[in-house]
Amino acid sequence: MNSTLKMGMIGGGPGSMIGDIHRITATAAGKAELVCGAFSSTKEKSLEKGKSLGLDENRIYGSFAEMIDKEAKLAESERMDFVAIVTPNHLHVEAAKLALEAGFHVICDKPLAFDYAEATAFQKVVEKSNSHFAMTYTYRGYPLLEKAKKIIDSGHLGDIRKVKVDYSQGWLAQLIEAEGHKQASWRTNPEKSGKGGTIADIGTHAFNLLESVSGLEVKSLMADVSILVEGRKIDDDTNILLEMSNGAKGYLSCSQICTGEDQDLSLHIYGSKAGLVWNHNTPNLLTIKYPDFREESIKGLDHEIRESREVNIPGHSPYFTEAFQRIYEGFFDTIQNNESQKDFVKATIDDGVRGMLFIEKAIQSSQARKWLNL
Amino acid sequence: MNSTLKMGMIGGGPGSMIGDIHRITATAAGKAELVCGAFSSTKEKSLEKGKSLGLDENRIYGSFAEMIDKEAKLAESERMDFVAIVTPNHLHVEAAKLALEAGFHVICDKPLAFDYAEATAFQKVVEKSNSHFAMTYTYRGYPLLEKAKKIIDSGHLGDIRKVKVDYSQGWLAQLIEAEGHKQASWRTNPEKSGKGGTIADIGTHAFNLLESVSGLEVKSLMADVSILVEGRKIDDDTNILLEMSNGAKGYLSCSQICTGEDQDLSLHIYGSKAGLVWNHNTPNLLTIKYPDFREESIKGLDHEIRESREVNIPGHSPYFTEAFQRIYEGFFDTIQNNESQKDFVKATIDDGVRGMLFIEKAIQSSQARKWLNL
Amino acid sequence: MNSTLKMGMIGGGPGSMIGDIHRITATAAGKAELVCGAFSSTKEKSLEKGKSLGLDENRIYGSFAEMIDKEAKLAESERMDFVAIVTPNHLHVEAAKLALEAGFHVICDKPLAFDYAEATAFQKVVEKSNSHFAMTYTYRGYPLLEKAKKIIDSGHLGDIRKVKVDYSQGWLAQLIEAEGHKQASWRTNPEKSGKGGTIADIGTHAFNLLESVSGLEVKSLMADVSILVEGRKIDDDTNILLEMSNGAKGYLSCSQICTGEDQDLSLHIYGSKAGLVWNHNTPNLLTIKYPDFREESIKGLDHEIRESREVNIPGHSPYFTEAFQRIYEGFFDTIQNNESQKDFVKATIDDGVRGMLFIEKAIQSSQARKWLNL
Amino acid sequence: MNSTLKMGMIGGGPGSMIGDIHRITATAAGKAELVCGAFSSTKEKSLEKGKSLGLDENRIYGSFAEMIDKEAKLAESERMDFVAIVTPNHLHVEAAKLALEAGFHVICDKPLAFDYAEATAFQKVVEKSNSHFAMTYTYRGYPLLEKAKKIIDSGHLGDIRKVKVDYSQGWLAQLIEAEGHKQASWRTNPEKSGKGGTIADIGTHAFNLLESVSGLEVKSLMADVSILVEGRKIDDDTNILLEMSNGAKGYLSCSQICTGEDQDLSLHIYGSKAGLVWNHNTPNLLTIKYPDFREESIKGLDHEIRESREVNIPGHSPYFTEAFQRIYEGFFDTIQNNESQKDFVKATIDDGVRGMLFIEKAIQSSQARKWLNL
Repeated sequence: MNSTLKMGMIGGGPGSMIGDIHRITATAAGKAELVCGAFSSTKEKSLEKGKSLGLDENRIYGSFAEMIDKEAKLAESERMDFVAIVTPNHLHVEAAKLALEAGFHVICDKPLAFDYAEATAFQKVVEKSNSHFAMTYTYRGYPLLEKAKKIIDSGHLGDIRKVKVDYSQGWLAQLIEAEGHKQASWRTNPEKSGKGGTIADIGTHAFNLLESVSGLEVKSLMADVSILVEGRKIDDDTNILLEMSNGAKGYLSCSQICTGEDQDLSLHIYGSKAGLVWNHNTPNLLTIKYPDFREESIKGLDHEIRESREVNIPGHSPYFTEAFQRIYEGFFDTIQNNESQKDFVKATIDDGVRGMLFIEKAIQSSQARKWLNL
Repeated sequence: MNSTLKMGMIGGGPGSMIGDIHRITATAAGKAELVCGAFSSTKEKSLEKGKSLGLDENRIYGSFAEMIDKEAKLAESERMDFVAIVTPNHLHVEAAKLALEAGFHVICDKPLAFDYAEATAFQKVVEKSNSHFAMTYTYRGYPLLEKAKKIIDSGHLGDIRKVKVDYSQGWLAQLIEAEGHKQASWRTNPEKSGKGGTIADIGTHAFNLLESVSGLEVKSLMADVSILVEGRKIDDDTNILLEMSNGAKGYLSCSQICTGEDQDLSLHIYGSKAGLVWNHNTPNLLTIKYPDFREESIKGLDHEIRESREVNIPGHSPYFTEAFQRIYEGFFDTIQNNESQKDFVKATIDDGVRGMLFIEKAIQSSQARKWLNL
Repeated sequence: MNSTLKMGMIGGGPGSMIGDIHRITATAAGKAELVCGAFSSTKEKSLEKGKSLGLDENRIYGSFAEMIDKEAKLAESERMDFVAIVTPNHLHVEAAKLALEAGFHVICDKPLAFDYAEATAFQKVVEKSNSHFAMTYTYRGYPLLEKAKKIIDSGHLGDIRKVKVDYSQGWLAQLIEAEGHKQASWRTNPEKSGKGGTIADIGTHAFNLLESVSGLEVKSLMADVSILVEGRKIDDDTNILLEMSNGAKGYLSCSQICTGEDQDLSLHIYGSKAGLVWNHNTPNLLTIKYPDFREESIKGLDHEIRESREVNIPGHSPYFTEAFQRIYEGFFDTIQNNESQKDFVKATIDDGVRGMLFIEKAIQSSQARKWLNL
Repeated sequence: MNSTLKMGMIGGGPGSMIGDIHRITATAAGKAELVCGAFSSTKEKSLEKGKSLGLDENRIYGSFAEMIDKEAKLAESERMDFVAIVTPNHLHVEAAKLALEAGFHVICDKPLAFDYAEATAFQKVVEKSNSHFAMTYTYRGYPLLEKAKKIIDSGHLGDIRKVKVDYSQGWLAQLIEAEGHKQASWRTNPEKSGKGGTIADIGTHAFNLLESVSGLEVKSLMADVSILVEGRKIDDDTNILLEMSNGAKGYLSCSQICTGEDQDLSLHIYGSKAGLVWNHNTPNLLTIKYPDFREESIKGLDHEIRESREVNIPGHSPYFTEAFQRIYEGFFDTIQNNESQKDFVKATIDDGVRGMLFIEKAIQSSQARKWLNL
């Protein structure tokens, strides 16, 4: 079955960053088209966005509740098939729950929920639902990280002993939320972001990247979660000691106050036979390091992965937008083939719940100044 | 006027690389939608591609002549507004001429034409036409190269004395056209590619990048155009000594037989006050070098450029696909505002004609083993 | 006074790595010459080494005690002026104490001592002595790190908020001490190395680099000191959360089991105005990062520093050997001019003692699983 | 036979750059000691330098003629064994001839001679001499370039098709010879430098590196030798098209007016099976690139090479100074073992003569604007 899927969008109004990326990458290959949206919590802004995208006015809604309700009443051939949720964190679960219960498939940005309690409650909703639920952990869409996972699964690195993941940005180095910066405002507002700030926004990416690529789970952690810019209400810098399920040691660091860093995300995994290094500054380079200081790098497009896909990813750069596109392809496969097979690009409710657990435990550990099990 | 433009496509059938990029980037921001196409010279393949994109069957054509003829007869509100030409080189001008004469705007991939004579004849057609004609020189869409141009225009480098541009790929290091590789087959076939092979395919990119960023013209050249893989019918490696209009010296090198290189394109421009370096391996890094060995780099998204644009470029990576998107935005501005203002991203017929002159002169110089003026 | 200083050496026998570097760099500029040595604890090996260096047999000794005793009895014009100590850690203080008490100047490799108690006791000896005592913390000799220090002292980064130092090697990824590897054998032997293994060998470098360049002290730490290679008797991997004297946060990581890493030492310091990055893989590149993603790099030789020196550092590469040479130059200045001025390249007894405190506290913190003040 | 060799030096007076490097690296391993020198053409400066190095006054000479004459009259056990020549180019041959004829071994900096005629005449002197003559082409001492040579010799790259060598510096971007800059003054003075300026100073390095690593000879060339800084008397920028002995094509570029470049020397060699890349900015990284975009890198110390050597190269960095040291080791082996075996690090009179031919042909080609055979 190859018909075009009909997409609805919740969030992504004027000034949103991630909404456009969802829409463009979901529809890029002609497998989906946007048919409706509740882009903002004000009807006016929702209309402004929806019209700019050429949507029929009667498919532009003033709230997600209204959208889900009205779409569900349309003919099956007309109504949306799935909804993408790109709101601030505190609305994710409420919107996702309504949509699933109305029979729509859901794809949701991370972090999953406002807090861990909300996440676990929602997990039960997903498990009972007949619809599909997926999450967009962007880095899961990067071909070379999928390759990294395969290399590690094959045993090529030997026993993993040391892991390091560091995600540093600098855009919150000043108190820009005080000047009305839209992205900063909700992300540093505990009422919208949840308990975690930077740890939720990018720490969860780092955590998910580490666990999913290494194939190991974080067993226990000792965190130092800090507010380093005066006047801020939520953490902007976190450093964590890690012990992994197999005894490997390491650290996770995330920060949004590293002045001058745009997107400095790096992953190092060292085993008894070889080490593996990936860095977002050179996203199409994966390096394997050997004891004799030889290095092997896989560079450029990962042809092996691409050739196995029905739709080719366009462009020279299998990066951010392409990663999203691959994630959507995986989601569409799941919807159309009712395929339950879990593969690397498709992050699930389990990833989402575990991300919330990570946030919660890190904050607890930091407050208690103690190692905690996850 | 902000209504969605209707796009037709010529070329880009099954197996095409660049066709998908044109379509996706042109339509990404919701400013254009694909309404028709003559995707291949066989009706069957054209239908296969068009259907996969969800087009109405009666808007999928078996030839570009048929498409232009039939679209012209549709109501203005229905027919395509512009056509993107992404065929092999030998069909560019024929298709573009028909389209312009039927009143459609045209955007065409490079190189412009089969040879220089065809290019100059077509230039007159463009000049007489009331429709707009643009070319997609991809690198003109890269924000940091536009920034480089501004830095040079400001006089920041002083008098330019030395220029170097090198574009090396490796995908033609074997005689893959003999094994039926689709992309290689037409690009190494003089009947489809024209007089130049590699020099036309990527040499014209290097040439256009150098002239457009430096603001200097190549005054004379001494070329060595070679076939280095046995059995090939057309050049696959070229090295050229350059003298620029202001007396600066340098070289241009392009090759598709550099085994292991994916996309190694670099530009170096040195002036009396500072040097400028850009490399496609780190496309979001522009470096200015000073006499005291200090370096200044502009990294990440070029916020200055982005904020001046109506539609924001999505993603972390202002690279290949985003470059195409910016080029299409420029083209749409021109169509909708009848704006004649020439800016960096919008390559014109003049760029196309000059590219053909470059190919012709380089080949002549190589054969005569002499310096030639351009 | 410009006469050549006479150098004695303790340690550095056959198979030593660091001994040759001390000797060559100390004598490179003609300011010192090697006149005697107790190169090994066996007379035979000491003779083998000393003869290979062209020393008179009667100036080659079987023990450092003998050397110090006999040299002290020679005429002032003949006897050594200073001694370089390059033995395993457990002999540093004993040898240094004897030499100082006999009136010789001493330069000693790091870490200072076997443990903190020995270090503090020795500190009193140094303070009472009329002779000079210096330590070779190699990275203090790197011109660009001295420059980094100056940049930070000038306030250019603003208030420092985040610090990261990571020193990863891979040469102990296998249990090579079990196979008789000379360097590994003593470094992983608690009887020779002291309480710390990797943390003493390279962790002290990382710690000293961080404190000396940032100008901040580590106020408290939470360490995880591990043995990750089975069968090893001493730590080979350590990760530490840091709180600095001014409230900045961060981490220090050191490891010798990162398979495939040769010498991966990096330093990141982020302030409210700018960030600073240095990496040993590109030792002659110092980068300052700004909020608008501009970067400034200082590359190549640091001419400013070099021109201020009497003797020019030869070569294109102000790296490891040159760093040692600069450290020796600083030591010689101190001896010849009785100059007490402490500058960046000259590490003192205080650096040595503080390094031992760091080792001790990190191990205690790890065992207690608690944050500890330093 | 392992006795210390006695070294004399011609040139290397106050303000010299390369003289100190010769002396330090020749004597670093204890295999040679400096016993005499004619450091400058004025007795006073020669004395100043010699005394600062602790030489006996009666072994410091006012001219190389005097030195060679007087040293030859000393007892064999006392007189110098070899002489290192580090004067400006125009004195190389005269000094070397005298020294060889007096029975001393000679090691000489590049380029060999003032011009090609002088070089070929001197070649006969060397061939007739019983003493050894060697040249210091620095890059021949880099372990990873020796490794590159071995990789290519093994056939690993397949048939070589494309070569590129580019050596760019920026220190002559201003007319600093007009301000009395010592190094610039003689290097840009045709009476001291010879016919070539930049092409002699660094172009010969690039040429020798290319031929010696690739194992191919330049068969013919088409050069553009330019003066790009107004007021200069000798070339400061050269670009050359190359045809190699096996039909491979490529280019050589050298420049000292690339503002902001310190030492940007790169080598690319592409074969039918793989490509090889080395860059002086990361001198301890050698990369082999494969058709599937995998890359293999050899990084850090080349243990294979190091372990085969009697004396270990100290330090983390097998770069410039270490390269010189390895070259001197090779020279000493030749002297002590009368070994005629030519290996990579030991450049000979043939390298020197060929370098002079290269300079001469490039300048002729540029003037005639014609391809010329070498």
